[in-house]
Amino acid sequence: MANQAKKRSLKLGAIIHGVGGGTSGWRHPELPSDASVNIGFYKQQAQKAEEGKFDLVFIADGLYITEKSIPHFLNRFEPITILSALATVTERIGLVGTLSTSYSEPFTVSRQFASIDHISGGRAGWNVVTSPLEGSALNFGGKDHPEHSKRYRIAEEYLEVAKGLWDSWEDDAFIRDKESGVFFDPEKLHRLNHKGEFFSVQGPLNIARSKQGQPVVFQAGSSDSGRTLAAKTADAVFTGHESLEEAQAFYRDVKERVAKEGRNPDHTLIFPGIGPIIGSTQEEAEAKYQQLTSLVTIENALDYLGRFFEHHDFSQYDLDAAFPDVGDLGSNSFRSGTDRIKQRAKEHNLTLREVALQAATPRNAFIGTPEHVADLVQQWFEEEGADGFIIASSYPGSLDDFVNLVVPILQERGVYRTEYEADTLRGNLGIPVPENRYTTARKQTGAAVN
Amino acid sequence: MANQAKKRSLKLGAIIHGVGGGTSGWRHPELPSDASVNIGFYKQQAQKAEEGKFDLVFIADGLYITEKSIPHFLNRFEPITILSALATVTERIGLVGTLSTSYSEPFTVSRQFASIDHISGGRAGWNVVTSPLEGSALNFGGKDHPEHSKRYRIAEEYLEVAKGLWDSWEDDAFIRDKESGVFFDPEKLHRLNHKGEFFSVQGPLNIARSKQGQPVVFQAGSSDSGRTLAAKTADAVFTGHESLEEAQAFYRDVKERVAKEGRNPDHTLIFPGIGPIIGSTQEEAEAKYQQLTSLVTIENALDYLGRFFEHHDFSQYDLDAAFPDVGDLGSNSFRSGTDRIKQRAKEHNLTLREVALQAATPRNAFIGTPEHVADLVQQWFEEEGADGFIIASSYPGSLDDFVNLVVPILQERGVYRTEYEADTLRGNLGIPVPENRYTTARKQTGAAVN
Repeated sequence: MANQAKKRSLKLGAIIHGVGGGTSGWRHPELPSDASVNIGFYKQQAQKAEEGKFDLVFIADGLYITEKSIPHFLNRFEPITILSALATVTERIGLVGTLSTSYSEPFTVSRQFASIDHISGGRAGWNVVTSPLEGSALNFGGKDHPEHSKRYRIAEEYLEVAKGLWDSWEDDAFIRDKESGVFFDPEKLHRLNHKGEFFSVQGPLNIARSKQGQPVVFQAGSSDSGRTLAAKTADAVFTGHESLEEAQAFYRDVKERVAKEGRNPDHTLIFPGIGPIIGSTQEEAEAKYQQLTSLVTIENALDYLGRFFEHHDFSQYDLDAAFPDVGDLGSNSFRSGTDRIKQRAKEHNLTLREVALQAATPRNAFIGTPEHVADLVQQWFEEEGADGFIIASSYPGSLDDFVNLVVPILQERGVYRTEYEADTLRGNLGIPVPENRYTTARKQTGAAVN
Repeated sequence: MANQAKKRSLKLGAIIHGVGGGTSGWRHPELPSDASVNIGFYKQQAQKAEEGKFDLVFIADGLYITEKSIPHFLNRFEPITILSALATVTERIGLVGTLSTSYSEPFTVSRQFASIDHISGGRAGWNVVTSPLEGSALNFGGKDHPEHSKRYRIAEEYLEVAKGLWDSWEDDAFIRDKESGVFFDPEKLHRLNHKGEFFSVQGPLNIARSKQGQPVVFQAGSSDSGRTLAAKTADAVFTGHESLEEAQAFYRDVKERVAKEGRNPDHTLIFPGIGPIIGSTQEEAEAKYQQLTSLVTIENALDYLGRFFEHHDFSQYDLDAAFPDVGDLGSNSFRSGTDRIKQRAKEHNLTLREVALQAATPRNAFIGTPEHVADLVQQWFEEEGADGFIIASSYPGSLDDFVNLVVPILQERGVYRTEYEADTLRGNLGIPVPENRYTTARKQTGAAVN
């Protein structure tokens, strides 16, 4: 176990999330209230994460808003654009963003991520999601939002197409010999000719593979379908857990599923998201947490809770009675999230008020001194609850605190890098460059392939 | 006329086109042969254009390649990503890119351009095209490529949706009052609720308007349908002409169409594309042109010509016989281009060889000393063949030559700016910020609108 832990090395990502993932973080006196559309803010955060030798920054997304949406969702940068913008003001850090397979075209999306991969010199990553929000369909033709398992079947075929398109050109396809006038070798250009249940895409893609072969694929659904998709296709999984035990169970389950698919479990990395709150003492950290809770009104909290349940109006119930029975609401969207909320309410006999306030200002274990946070990070990592973490900003300056105060401790302990190992995202994550499928086939048959 | 010319001011754009728009420019000894996927090259070109106080850089695009495609098309950056990447390494120059309305979703595309508009501080522009290449459909589900006039009907509705989504939030919708906890004014958030022939999009868009209100809309089709679309919707038109007379006829026609649509013709600017070849003497410029032609083989030239005619194989004909009758081929794709090629071949009794070589290395009038090129630019501008020009690189260093040698002459003559007038693309182009439609309605009715 110690031996095995030795071979692994901790990975870190930073989610850049503007005014934050909650209802009220924007009210913090020190946060620019336009942070979600403030390029200076995104640039500063990405550069700070790079200063901390983070593997990657992470941009989340959504495709549907209502008056009840949290502030960050109402007005934020689109992932493809902000990742590209950050590519030219960073050098080494990976650039990972969310894009839904339910409302986009594989030719366009695989091309855009490949293009970011070239712009950044091999640092692109795509967090594949299936769009949890029912309303998304209303912005894309108005047909029905596909149900949960169908969304995952679409995603699986979509990724098959994307990965196929990314292999359109073998690595040595571009000869570019000015003397002879030969720009490329047509034998190393391949049409995918995909015809499946959901997609029909001929190819080839009009962009080469990058230095890292293909963009890194993240997957962020923690439901059974989400885990299955991750096991089949993902290089990394973005998840969320409230305890080490829960994280370990998830970690084991996903790694086992990866192995069952015949893939190397060491090459699918598990990243729980955490929102550390760091103070020079435990009390100072607690005070920072209390300041955050003080910004949340109960109305905000009910709205926020409602979002997990298809914007259900929770203000109709008695705040101090038991959490109401809302049936299956939400099971076709944020399934793992709603299941957890309902289960915890039941286990702990929580009132609606308690459930709402907890949902709006989640309290995790990573609250305390830099040493305390470093201890937990190290423990979760070494005891296989995580291969790395995605750090979310809980308060203004929290990423700075993590980089300035926690990272040096982890480096001192030899748990975390002091310099980037590579100049690509795959290189830093320690996952291999996938060989082009046609190159593999050529080697196997010793003959020309098409 | 002199008076009218006085009010206008010359605009300039630079198309950044990697290894170039022809078959063989990549063979030039001084061009990096990977220029189309070389971020350093794109950055240098954009910054050079900004040094020359250009209004904008321009990125073209296409969605389908074959073995016969020109080198730049085979392997190039995708426009949304490269525009975003350039946004953070430039300060004042506009960022305009091509995106097709035939194979994309208006919610996604209007959001991406709005996001670039925020990232760049109001410098985004979208060149609306309808995808001339039949084969594009094969990469997007494989249904039929819509025929020419239908593509333009789709584009018109698409732009109606995009412009509607861009107005989702009134300019003062975001209150962001930390004290009261009011993030936005719900009366200033609007759902589009569009249900049309081709699109059904509810909205609202999840991003605010930028400093310039809405991204600038370019239109690049010169056919009758293209001109009609431009007249109804475009802020600027990207076109191409071989003589001042042709340019003037186009200019007059489009401006008249704009007026007929009840819009101000001064607010739809006409930009012919030109590829200046500049030498310290006329002979030196001619030598540069000859060097370019020497890079083109007849095989390349035939392939290039074929591209306008649905990849028709012209190698089957006698090279030195009259240009063959290919019927309607190409009329559903690059209609204005194919019409011109056929017409010119007929008028001048050209052989296939002549037509192919001219197509592959187009010769325009803008070849000569800096003074000669400046004279022509000024003449076309003052005699209303153009409001501005999109400068294409004909040879490595041609943008540098234009900025270093031609721009100072135009500035000296008072035809062209010596400093940016504004920090938005609209501001520099001298076209007004469109007022939010709901704000307008509110003013007109004096009442709340939704």
